[in-house]
Amino acid sequence: MSKPILILGGGPAGLTAAHALSTVGQKSILIEKEDRLGGAPILSGYAKLVPPGEWAKDVIGAMVTRVEDNDLVDIRTSSTVTAFSGEPGAFTASLSDGTAIEAGAAVLCSGFTHFDSINKPEWGFGTFEDVITTAQAEQMISSGQGIHCPSDGRKPERVAILLCVGSRDRQIGREWCSKICCTVSSNLAMEIREELPNCHVYIYYMDIRTFGLYEDTYYWKSQEEYKVKYIKARIAEVTSDGERLIVKGEDTLVKRPITIPFDLVVHAIGMDPNVDNLEIAATFGVDLEPHGHIGRAPTYSGMSGTSRPGVFVAGAATGPETIDDSIAQGQAAAMAALAAARGPALAAE
Amino acid sequence: MSKPILILGGGPAGLTAAHALSTVGQKSILIEKEDRLGGAPILSGYAKLVPPGEWAKDVIGAMVTRVEDNDLVDIRTSSTVTAFSGEPGAFTASLSDGTAIEAGAAVLCSGFTHFDSINKPEWGFGTFEDVITTAQAEQMISSGQGIHCPSDGRKPERVAILLCVGSRDRQIGREWCSKICCTVSSNLAMEIREELPNCHVYIYYMDIRTFGLYEDTYYWKSQEEYKVKYIKARIAEVTSDGERLIVKGEDTLVKRPITIPFDLVVHAIGMDPNVDNLEIAATFGVDLEPHGHIGRAPTYSGMSGTSRPGVFVAGAATGPETIDDSIAQGQAAAMAALAAARGPALAAE
Repeated sequence: MSKPILILGGGPAGLTAAHALSTVGQKSILIEKEDRLGGAPILSGYAKLVPPGEWAKDVIGAMVTRVEDNDLVDIRTSSTVTAFSGEPGAFTASLSDGTAIEAGAAVLCSGFTHFDSINKPEWGFGTFEDVITTAQAEQMISSGQGIHCPSDGRKPERVAILLCVGSRDRQIGREWCSKICCTVSSNLAMEIREELPNCHVYIYYMDIRTFGLYEDTYYWKSQEEYKVKYIKARIAEVTSDGERLIVKGEDTLVKRPITIPFDLVVHAIGMDPNVDNLEIAATFGVDLEPHGHIGRAPTYSGMSGTSRPGVFVAGAATGPETIDDSIAQGQAAAMAALAAARGPALAAE
Repeated sequence: MSKPILILGGGPAGLTAAHALSTVGQKSILIEKEDRLGGAPILSGYAKLVPPGEWAKDVIGAMVTRVEDNDLVDIRTSSTVTAFSGEPGAFTASLSDGTAIEAGAAVLCSGFTHFDSINKPEWGFGTFEDVITTAQAEQMISSGQGIHCPSDGRKPERVAILLCVGSRDRQIGREWCSKICCTVSSNLAMEIREELPNCHVYIYYMDIRTFGLYEDTYYWKSQEEYKVKYIKARIAEVTSDGERLIVKGEDTLVKRPITIPFDLVVHAIGMDPNVDNLEIAATFGVDLEPHGHIGRAPTYSGMSGTSRPGVFVAGAATGPETIDDSIAQGQAAAMAALAAARGPALAAE
């Protein structure tokens, strides 16, 4: 019997890796620092996800249940790894509860940390109650409360979604694009328009990055079927006239200042490296890439690899990532870990 | 001994799937319609690839060699599948050479077809010799000839790269974004500037979609270190004044017509569905999605799946895709196919 595979993180990538391994009879130990599985979509209460269009609690929830009901997956919630040593096929990890486990390989699926909008103060978060984040807007929808203004509970008549909050912004040290916020915002705008058909929804953008097949299924659909309006703009600040929020900036297409009132302003927050990455990198002995994400092998022939043999990485731990690509990477890393832990011995049967 | 897994297509996804399966002792049969492996990067002669920055012939070539030298991979080039029947664990396929093979599962890695610029005639391809495609520009570099004007062989002093040729263009039935052309064009522009330091390189774009970590490593780097210029514009036509090519359009940032002369114009061509997709779908009994790509299961819990159990899909067969995501998907589909073909029997040892 080969040793189990250690999986760090119970979000989409980690859940997929654990399930994938079980389908070929391979045991895994799934370690999650929070008290429940599901990762950001569950812990942050996302609403309907891109691309399946189903509720996070249903689709990610099903992935959680599938793993919880699986005898080949040993789940350790509220746990972290405090030490890790050994080599492929024979690693030993110490856990925060004092126990030690053996593992044939490890897969880091430790995800990301949402950008904290308080670090972009001129855009009103923390100052005005009715400036919220995409995560908060999703929570309003997924909780059943519906979209509303936190200040007084009223339903907004005008909503602005500001893209690239904590992304593509060197002033605050976030050079990267967070990859999925454009599409998530198109999706959110459609959800708002479905709930509040008379509400005007504007998306302020630099570039619209609804890449691949998201182009017509989100960007065009949101404009044509849902009448969402897109404004290419540089935002200067979000203030208030005492009654409504005022978004000030420059429309970079017509090259003139724009000052538009809104009831609710939503920050499309980016994906920061996981705040624990320095600790994770030190514990597992792997390198971080220059932005602070977990470094992925820069070679096509071993793309799930890290700088340490036998330790693999998948999903948003490597940088901003979509859920569907995180899932593919989770499954890919499971395959790589399986080979590292068991190798061609599998050919035996 | 379980049956081998049939892999259709010897590009990055298929090469990865075959290798991944071999690492756990699983045999595969790799079927490629062309007379050699490597897929678009090799067959079309790509130059340095995104993101490793290494030559296609080296990095994809190494993936080809790794599979060619592998006893667990049965390679059938110049072959197609003419019939496919059975069920997971017990499929039978007929090949174009008249032989029949048994397979436990199948993975469709049949890729895409480059957009043919002749279908965008107002942009000058087919009319002017010095209007070429990104694939042709890459061939000039990878062949060692270097970037030049096909009409007279001179080195260009001014090059325009036009993005979204055959992408995001409803007039010609291409609603999708081809996902990677922006980043590939940034990369190509840097290669041109490296070879010809005095050449001015302009990229005409609608939105710059250098998503995720490509933002600073391609988009910003190309501007800051390589002085590539980006123009947000709608192109009207590419003509000639008898000496040089003339790109006419509207600069959509300053809202005025622009007419700029160039020596060489490069079409950043998009990714069409594989021209063989109707035949592949009929043979394998799988559904196509509305754009004509091979339909991928719209569910997070089985994303490598097609509409037929035991038949999986990976890479650009599913829609425009990057090479690195194609590789992850190839490995992911290998894992799914392994489970379909062998299931928990692997637990035996």
